[in-house]
Amino acid sequence: MHTAYQTKRKIEFADTDMAGIVHFTRFFVFMESAEHEFLRSLGTSVATEWEGNKIGWPRLAASCEYLSPLRFEDEVDICLWVSKKGAKSLTYQFHFTRQGEDIARGQLTTVCCITNPGEKLRAIPIPDFIADQIHASS
Amino acid sequence: MHTAYQTKRKIEFADTDMAGIVHFTRFFVFMESAEHEFLRSLGTSVATEWEGNKIGWPRLAASCEYLSPLRFEDEVDICLWVSKKGAKSLTYQFHFTRQGEDIARGQLTTVCCITNPGEKLRAIPIPDFIADQIHASS
Amino acid sequence: MHTAYQTKRKIEFADTDMAGIVHFTRFFVFMESAEHEFLRSLGTSVATEWEGNKIGWPRLAASCEYLSPLRFEDEVDICLWVSKKGAKSLTYQFHFTRQGEDIARGQLTTVCCITNPGEKLRAIPIPDFIADQIHASS
Amino acid sequence: MHTAYQTKRKIEFADTDMAGIVHFTRFFVFMESAEHEFLRSLGTSVATEWEGNKIGWPRLAASCEYLSPLRFEDEVDICLWVSKKGAKSLTYQFHFTRQGEDIARGQLTTVCCITNPGEKLRAIPIPDFIADQIHASS
Repeated sequence: MHTAYQTKRKIEFADTDMAGIVHFTRFFVFMESAEHEFLRSLGTSVATEWEGNKIGWPRLAASCEYLSPLRFEDEVDICLWVSKKGAKSLTYQFHFTRQGEDIARGQLTTVCCITNPGEKLRAIPIPDFIADQIHASS
Repeated sequence: MHTAYQTKRKIEFADTDMAGIVHFTRFFVFMESAEHEFLRSLGTSVATEWEGNKIGWPRLAASCEYLSPLRFEDEVDICLWVSKKGAKSLTYQFHFTRQGEDIARGQLTTVCCITNPGEKLRAIPIPDFIADQIHASS
Repeated sequence: MHTAYQTKRKIEFADTDMAGIVHFTRFFVFMESAEHEFLRSLGTSVATEWEGNKIGWPRLAASCEYLSPLRFEDEVDICLWVSKKGAKSLTYQFHFTRQGEDIARGQLTTVCCITNPGEKLRAIPIPDFIADQIHASS
Repeated sequence: MHTAYQTKRKIEFADTDMAGIVHFTRFFVFMESAEHEFLRSLGTSVATEWEGNKIGWPRLAASCEYLSPLRFEDEVDICLWVSKKGAKSLTYQFHFTRQGEDIARGQLTTVCCITNPGEKLRAIPIPDFIADQIHASS
């Protein structure tokens, strides 16, 4: 089963830079927001509580390859899927397209952690109610 | 006594937008960073502890008038002073210039609050060790 | 006739700061994006061409009053209307609410300009096809 | 000869997110600004003119590994070097540390292009006055 999640986003003026295109750092914001939408689609959130603890998903790594620029008012399609499900971590792939044209490919690796205020971050096995819904595909 | 505080900032690529100039929202970031430098110059911080409580300065109001655009790699001079010192609040004025040319004028009103996590924000009189160092000037 | 324009926005993680709330500068991005949606609803854009010239709307002034904080995943309703229609400029009012609760009130003054690359910005009367659709209300 | 370039940066409030740490996307802004400082140290700029053409350095790829979080008011040391010098492209490595502690490692691949307005981006060999000053090291 392929758990690709589809979303889209309209480019805002504040996403652009003086080169007239979307600033390369904004793609990471777009990836993160797609990830959070995906988590909400599973009935959870990137910042939630579980068994009395705060749970979060700090980032271990992020990358992006840029194939073609995005511009103001473009509507970009974002396809997200989990390419690797570890015991405690998830690796997401992102494919950005505009009307079928390749725009960018990104990757995000996150780790499930207890994030109680005042405590040190501690990685934990992904809770079953989340893990059971996620199926890695390449 | 005039307590004007002077700082400067070099414009970064990520500050610009597709109009080729600094995006208008960035001036508010510049104001805030100047405010924080000013607070550090008084031996405190915008996020500090005092008598066992966390102290912060939430914003009540912010405004800016734009006179001339800033561009990538410009060096902008920022002059900050307190125009009004209330019992619990401060109003800052900001004057942005580039080599003497007027660029923008801004204003920020902040209120001193106890910001303990899990508690509702509560405005408090500005602690003396800060208030005593601040002299309002028009 | 009241030309209020309604939109909404879901708060993203990147909108927040270490105080756990939406950073005060983001409200200006939200205002701008609402303004641009409004212009699109009139069949134009903040960056368009008209009679062989590029037309844009540089900002003269921006302000915001903060009444109650926004948090991650909040859905905020944004109501925009034009409070003043000058020959060359528009003043927008913004009212931010969350489930009916007052969050913030903002204002943006913009001026219609020819923004051809390599030329100095030049303010012009708002073209009729835009001006005719806009009705100021207090 | 090792052409490492050293810079530093003080973390601003607007760099943080509700997790109380620097938002992961900000590291890419920090990389870019260090790259631009480095180019200025060579007597050029990321946006310059050369032989009658505008020259820029669009990004092909960007990545970052996060080892330890940064917080408000931290001072982060950034070490940049070129790990690969192609005929038309450069790959930069970035090492972020705070008082000697590893914080993050990043990479940016950029390509030298003619960026004249109204023309399609065109990759060109890196001009000698820049290329001659850059020595790749692993």
